[in-house]
Amino acid sequence: MLFEKNDRILFIGDSIGDYDRERPVGDSADGWGTSYVADVASMLQAAYPAYRMRIMNVCTSGHQSRDLEKRWDEDVMNNRPDWVCMMIGINDVWRQYDCPDRPELWYGIEDYEAALCRMIEKTLPKVKGMVLMTPYFLEQNKEDEMRKTMDAYGAVVKKLGEKYGILTIDIQKMWDDFFSEGGLHPHAICWDCIHPNIIGRKVLCRTFLKAVGYEW
Amino acid sequence: MLFEKNDRILFIGDSIGDYDRERPVGDSADGWGTSYVADVASMLQAAYPAYRMRIMNVCTSGHQSRDLEKRWDEDVMNNRPDWVCMMIGINDVWRQYDCPDRPELWYGIEDYEAALCRMIEKTLPKVKGMVLMTPYFLEQNKEDEMRKTMDAYGAVVKKLGEKYGILTIDIQKMWDDFFSEGGLHPHAICWDCIHPNIIGRKVLCRTFLKAVGYEW
Amino acid sequence: MLFEKNDRILFIGDSIGDYDRERPVGDSADGWGTSYVADVASMLQAAYPAYRMRIMNVCTSGHQSRDLEKRWDEDVMNNRPDWVCMMIGINDVWRQYDCPDRPELWYGIEDYEAALCRMIEKTLPKVKGMVLMTPYFLEQNKEDEMRKTMDAYGAVVKKLGEKYGILTIDIQKMWDDFFSEGGLHPHAICWDCIHPNIIGRKVLCRTFLKAVGYEW
Amino acid sequence: MLFEKNDRILFIGDSIGDYDRERPVGDSADGWGTSYVADVASMLQAAYPAYRMRIMNVCTSGHQSRDLEKRWDEDVMNNRPDWVCMMIGINDVWRQYDCPDRPELWYGIEDYEAALCRMIEKTLPKVKGMVLMTPYFLEQNKEDEMRKTMDAYGAVVKKLGEKYGILTIDIQKMWDDFFSEGGLHPHAICWDCIHPNIIGRKVLCRTFLKAVGYEW
Amino acid sequence: MLFEKNDRILFIGDSIGDYDRERPVGDSADGWGTSYVADVASMLQAAYPAYRMRIMNVCTSGHQSRDLEKRWDEDVMNNRPDWVCMMIGINDVWRQYDCPDRPELWYGIEDYEAALCRMIEKTLPKVKGMVLMTPYFLEQNKEDEMRKTMDAYGAVVKKLGEKYGILTIDIQKMWDDFFSEGGLHPHAICWDCIHPNIIGRKVLCRTFLKAVGYEW
Amino acid sequence: MLFEKNDRILFIGDSIGDYDRERPVGDSADGWGTSYVADVASMLQAAYPAYRMRIMNVCTSGHQSRDLEKRWDEDVMNNRPDWVCMMIGINDVWRQYDCPDRPELWYGIEDYEAALCRMIEKTLPKVKGMVLMTPYFLEQNKEDEMRKTMDAYGAVVKKLGEKYGILTIDIQKMWDDFFSEGGLHPHAICWDCIHPNIIGRKVLCRTFLKAVGYEW
Amino acid sequence: MLFEKNDRILFIGDSIGDYDRERPVGDSADGWGTSYVADVASMLQAAYPAYRMRIMNVCTSGHQSRDLEKRWDEDVMNNRPDWVCMMIGINDVWRQYDCPDRPELWYGIEDYEAALCRMIEKTLPKVKGMVLMTPYFLEQNKEDEMRKTMDAYGAVVKKLGEKYGILTIDIQKMWDDFFSEGGLHPHAICWDCIHPNIIGRKVLCRTFLKAVGYEW
Amino acid sequence: MLFEKNDRILFIGDSIGDYDRERPVGDSADGWGTSYVADVASMLQAAYPAYRMRIMNVCTSGHQSRDLEKRWDEDVMNNRPDWVCMMIGINDVWRQYDCPDRPELWYGIEDYEAALCRMIEKTLPKVKGMVLMTPYFLEQNKEDEMRKTMDAYGAVVKKLGEKYGILTIDIQKMWDDFFSEGGLHPHAICWDCIHPNIIGRKVLCRTFLKAVGYEW
Repeated sequence: MLFEKNDRILFIGDSIGDYDRERPVGDSADGWGTSYVADVASMLQAAYPAYRMRIMNVCTSGHQSRDLEKRWDEDVMNNRPDWVCMMIGINDVWRQYDCPDRPELWYGIEDYEAALCRMIEKTLPKVKGMVLMTPYFLEQNKEDEMRKTMDAYGAVVKKLGEKYGILTIDIQKMWDDFFSEGGLHPHAICWDCIHPNIIGRKVLCRTFLKAVGYEW
Repeated sequence: MLFEKNDRILFIGDSIGDYDRERPVGDSADGWGTSYVADVASMLQAAYPAYRMRIMNVCTSGHQSRDLEKRWDEDVMNNRPDWVCMMIGINDVWRQYDCPDRPELWYGIEDYEAALCRMIEKTLPKVKGMVLMTPYFLEQNKEDEMRKTMDAYGAVVKKLGEKYGILTIDIQKMWDDFFSEGGLHPHAICWDCIHPNIIGRKVLCRTFLKAVGYEW
Repeated sequence: MLFEKNDRILFIGDSIGDYDRERPVGDSADGWGTSYVADVASMLQAAYPAYRMRIMNVCTSGHQSRDLEKRWDEDVMNNRPDWVCMMIGINDVWRQYDCPDRPELWYGIEDYEAALCRMIEKTLPKVKGMVLMTPYFLEQNKEDEMRKTMDAYGAVVKKLGEKYGILTIDIQKMWDDFFSEGGLHPHAICWDCIHPNIIGRKVLCRTFLKAVGYEW
Repeated sequence: MLFEKNDRILFIGDSIGDYDRERPVGDSADGWGTSYVADVASMLQAAYPAYRMRIMNVCTSGHQSRDLEKRWDEDVMNNRPDWVCMMIGINDVWRQYDCPDRPELWYGIEDYEAALCRMIEKTLPKVKGMVLMTPYFLEQNKEDEMRKTMDAYGAVVKKLGEKYGILTIDIQKMWDDFFSEGGLHPHAICWDCIHPNIIGRKVLCRTFLKAVGYEW
Repeated sequence: MLFEKNDRILFIGDSIGDYDRERPVGDSADGWGTSYVADVASMLQAAYPAYRMRIMNVCTSGHQSRDLEKRWDEDVMNNRPDWVCMMIGINDVWRQYDCPDRPELWYGIEDYEAALCRMIEKTLPKVKGMVLMTPYFLEQNKEDEMRKTMDAYGAVVKKLGEKYGILTIDIQKMWDDFFSEGGLHPHAICWDCIHPNIIGRKVLCRTFLKAVGYEW
Repeated sequence: MLFEKNDRILFIGDSIGDYDRERPVGDSADGWGTSYVADVASMLQAAYPAYRMRIMNVCTSGHQSRDLEKRWDEDVMNNRPDWVCMMIGINDVWRQYDCPDRPELWYGIEDYEAALCRMIEKTLPKVKGMVLMTPYFLEQNKEDEMRKTMDAYGAVVKKLGEKYGILTIDIQKMWDDFFSEGGLHPHAICWDCIHPNIIGRKVLCRTFLKAVGYEW
Repeated sequence: MLFEKNDRILFIGDSIGDYDRERPVGDSADGWGTSYVADVASMLQAAYPAYRMRIMNVCTSGHQSRDLEKRWDEDVMNNRPDWVCMMIGINDVWRQYDCPDRPELWYGIEDYEAALCRMIEKTLPKVKGMVLMTPYFLEQNKEDEMRKTMDAYGAVVKKLGEKYGILTIDIQKMWDDFFSEGGLHPHAICWDCIHPNIIGRKVLCRTFLKAVGYEW
Repeated sequence: MLFEKNDRILFIGDSIGDYDRERPVGDSADGWGTSYVADVASMLQAAYPAYRMRIMNVCTSGHQSRDLEKRWDEDVMNNRPDWVCMMIGINDVWRQYDCPDRPELWYGIEDYEAALCRMIEKTLPKVKGMVLMTPYFLEQNKEDEMRKTMDAYGAVVKKLGEKYGILTIDIQKMWDDFFSEGGLHPHAICWDCIHPNIIGRKVLCRTFLKAVGYEW
């Protein structure tokens, strides 16, 4: 598996990873909240108790890439992680569509890419590695304007993952595959195409664990 | 305008018209709740104070056509309306997609049509008239499975409206037109493609008022 | 219509426009609250989605003209509105009658006029225009002391509207006309002759929309 | 004073006397609530401790004369009062004006008079005496429709008081006198012209106590 | 009556006058709370509406004479009263008996007298007059230790009232007289011998009003 | 000690033993509440764990002897106690003084004695024994009317204890001795002379334990 | 995997599977609660969306085998499961140790075995199969009295599993193995040796999923 | 008894002594909370009212020895105790086992001993004496890792008690003796082996009182 004994693993992102995590850091079993991050963390501890890993959750609801950057020193670097796992961008895109009258809440794709680059470059020298996840939108109509924008942001993540040699998980593609399997409509996973219910969180959890080589 | 002095006007449907209406009947200004029905009712009273109409809201969250039928005598007939305005069917369809493992919560299209017929036939002889509205799904991808089903249910409403000579408002078409105008993405109206925010409720309200000949 | 594409429209006043608006600014659909301002804003967005106007509500319960003046820079000028819509004065008058033992809560008519002038003169050079509304008291007895005082304050507003060439809506007259139509007694609109219920808010909303040339 | 040692005194009416009284009977110091009835009761006990009177409050918010009649046996006769003090009628009138669309909530003047007669005739043979108070509306405009109706109902009370030889207090006149003294506008007493604040409750209390010969 | 047109009357003391008064000053009808002070204030306004007196309540639960002195400038002098009515000392005494292990909460009789003198001397030159009330303890056993101490503190108040020529009400004597009349045991007025219920508050209210020449 | 291995011990009485006990029976550690009964029960279990006694608390706030009698079969006999410990009578007396206007709440001394006799005679044949405690009033003035009445009721308990040969604890005398020791005034134990604070509950607890031969 | 397309799978047991499940049946994603059952159910749906299985949770906190038996018809048979998964017995044992004074709360091992037999025999003919899990106690001291009793109850489950040819998971052994791996002390999983935290719930979940042949 | 007239006695420690004590100091009857400290304090006052001792509780949930040291000046020295009673160390140990992934929450045995020494040496010259209590863990398996660590910390306390000639109570041994008596399993005292229920608190209370020579 990617992670090793005594590793410190940190998750940062938006509401997808927040779900009532503890402040300032979602540390240990009681602090992880109820998001996919909590599922990943507890699955790791359940399978590797002797590793005594430390898993920290600093995801915050509503945050965009610029918000992460503002708190990067305090919330990421100060926690001295060996691994930083990041999924960000949904709110950078979403605000352009649910708040069409408030442009100060939008965060454009060039700004997004630049912010990601700065965070990655600051972090890579200090850690064993990072894990990137693309933002996503469960809308299955690829012609939808918001879906198109989200795909463009996801493409940025994949490009940067390749550029910096970082393990990158295409979460959007995972969802598309999941729905193309049939059986479940996006409304069986969540009503707003963003916040997964308990099933959707397990879909995310399994995807992440497989990507990092979790031994079942 | 369609409605006349002293008319008793009743709205029945699901959560789209409920939004905290009073029980058992959302009567008078304090009881209408905050849905589009409340907007319609207050706009009517504001423009026609001397009509002294009575507007009653008996929409109930989560209800399907079969639920309406069960309470039709008590909630509709007993209130002796001159007009019955009904929008129903969203939950008949929705449960097929958000509860794929609970078929007892689905309500099929033949059952839906039959239930509508029974309610209409029971009502028409006792009222001045009815107003039908199609159910809707804000999803703009007409190939989406749930959208296709919703369109089929909407077609039933339009067919029955024609058959019985009832004023019928194609709410789904109205939404499609609204979004095709550009400017606002469905996420600017609601996050779950079903429950409109204050803007969306006004869109519904204007559509209804125009259809009944409201004099601005 | 008075307002144009991309216009920024700001409403300022007292509790009549507040009704649980968001702080510091009642911005966008979720922030407008439930007052007539929220009705106006949502009616505008529902009819002109492609205009992508921005409508801001900074009305605050209990405020008098002097309170508005104190926060004018922060709450009005800093928000860079194209249009400023203002209804103020009810509390300037009301406190003289419901707090007869606390003169520090009263605000006299000369002070009122002077405050209005200063706000108008500071604003006009920076905006496309303003909309003024007179304060009102639903009491239909024009000999009532408080009604007489309110009428005097309303006269100040109309005088200033004329002096500065500002679109001015005589809300008090609108109410008098409304009640003279018969059908509804003031107690059907509100119990304290000040805070309108859902019907009364729609009366205000329609009056405002007509005055600005809203196309139904 | 009208009341004597060991007398049982019962107050019945609407919200004016309710103000959080205890259920089913507002008995003793902790149960009288905070209305003028509570003021009267405590003033009586404070001045006549050795009388050991029992004072019972069965006023109920929103009640009309017909509601009182329905519970007269249980709430009045069963409590075996020596004196019954009644102020009723405000809601019989008010509903005609604040619920213009719900005639089932109105209670007409003939019905009102008949109900009063039945209650009085049932009671007089069993008690030392009754005290009647007229309903009131603080509106000082005697041409207001609701005020006119209220005056008519008050006239019924005075007529019956005379007919049956019952001590009758003209509360409406008392208010009119009070406001004609100047100093306080009705809005200094209450905002809805019905429910008195702490000052208004003392005005009622003093009027009642004077009428029954309270020795200061 | 002692008070005159436009007089500003301030009450200061402990919990006996507090009972949920508004902070920082219990001003006007909504702010007086539910203590005997609220009863006095509303009785005054009810009888003398044209006087337009201002009545302010700054009594605070748990306070002793030293606490009053600390806030005298802010809570008394800054409010520019014409009359200052003060009842203080119960907590100076009580803490000696209910907190026998915490001497820092006691306030001795010499300190008490000195604090009262300083407050009186600071105040008299700036006001029309003061009204002093003795502290009290409803315990009717004059040999009880706490009652003896309370009587000694009361004697200080009466001595100072005489020395400075201030209207002084012997509240303890009033209670003793009240109970010697028979009819009510102290437990019918309050359970802790300190905080009067609604009847006891009216006893206090009547005593105060009589002392200041209230015209019934 | 009085109690033996596997004994079932039941406490019945009023609020002095209630203090939030569990319903219907305050069974086991989590159900005893926080009264002196809970202190006695936990002290017994702490010292005699191997006895595995069962201690049940069925004391109920506000109850008088007649209330106990009404539920004696259900709450006492059905629980098959080996020992019944009872302190009752405070409310039989108290209501005569704090509710002087409600004689239906009083319970006279002959009725009290008769009720006690009936309960004792019904119980003695079915149990190993009973423990009686006198009711009490912390008022140290033996001339106080309520104290005199309470002493009379206590005398009844002692008389019956002797008559039936039941272990009887004179709680009133215990309190008198306690206060005569000096050091603590009744207000250091409770403010209403009835409900002991944590210290007073331990005074009761120690007295009971000593009386039953608890081995420290 | 053990389960097949369209299978109906029901979990029954005590608080270990309850954790806020919905009543009467914890059906679908929103109703499973937060226990290991919810983890198992969501992991199954995440991996096999096209199976459209239905997973029902009827575990109830505090229940013993006899409680399950009482509701077996209503909660198990009426739901027509294809598979019944049961873990029961912890409370049968626990009450013997945490309520040593209340034998009516204990459930002996012969009764336990008999109840299990009756439930199994009633069920097997109507289902595809059952899954049994042993009760457990995290105490690692096998000489502890409660642990010894729990092991005896677990032995019953294993015996019956063999007798009836039912897939049986030895949960107690799983925990013992887990702790013998080192790394985590039982207090890192739960504080009361019974209710697992999020990590412990995942340990249970993984054990169950492995046992049923879940394809990772 | 160890304590004398007018002595000031202070308890410091962790949650075992906290149980909702008042902040900043749990002073007097209303402030001690519900822990064994509250039981000890109230038993002392109940038996020695004339001593007028002052008993202060500054125990704080979750605290370790290092936390006590940080607040020693403010919470201990500033309160000028004659006696300091301390039980600390449970959390120093516990965090090593329930938070295996957060070493910053552990406090090692050398640090523990050093912190204790510093606190003792700072205190002894200023007080009449101290009372030390060992930390404990109800786990009866002496081979359990956490129990072994707790015993080692307890040995430190006993060593220091001897070294400085301080009265030291071996609480762990007391518990072991208590359970070896039979009758009660640790789960009858608490579920987490740390926080005693009402019985366990009395066990602690009796042990403490015996150790200080309390005269029953």
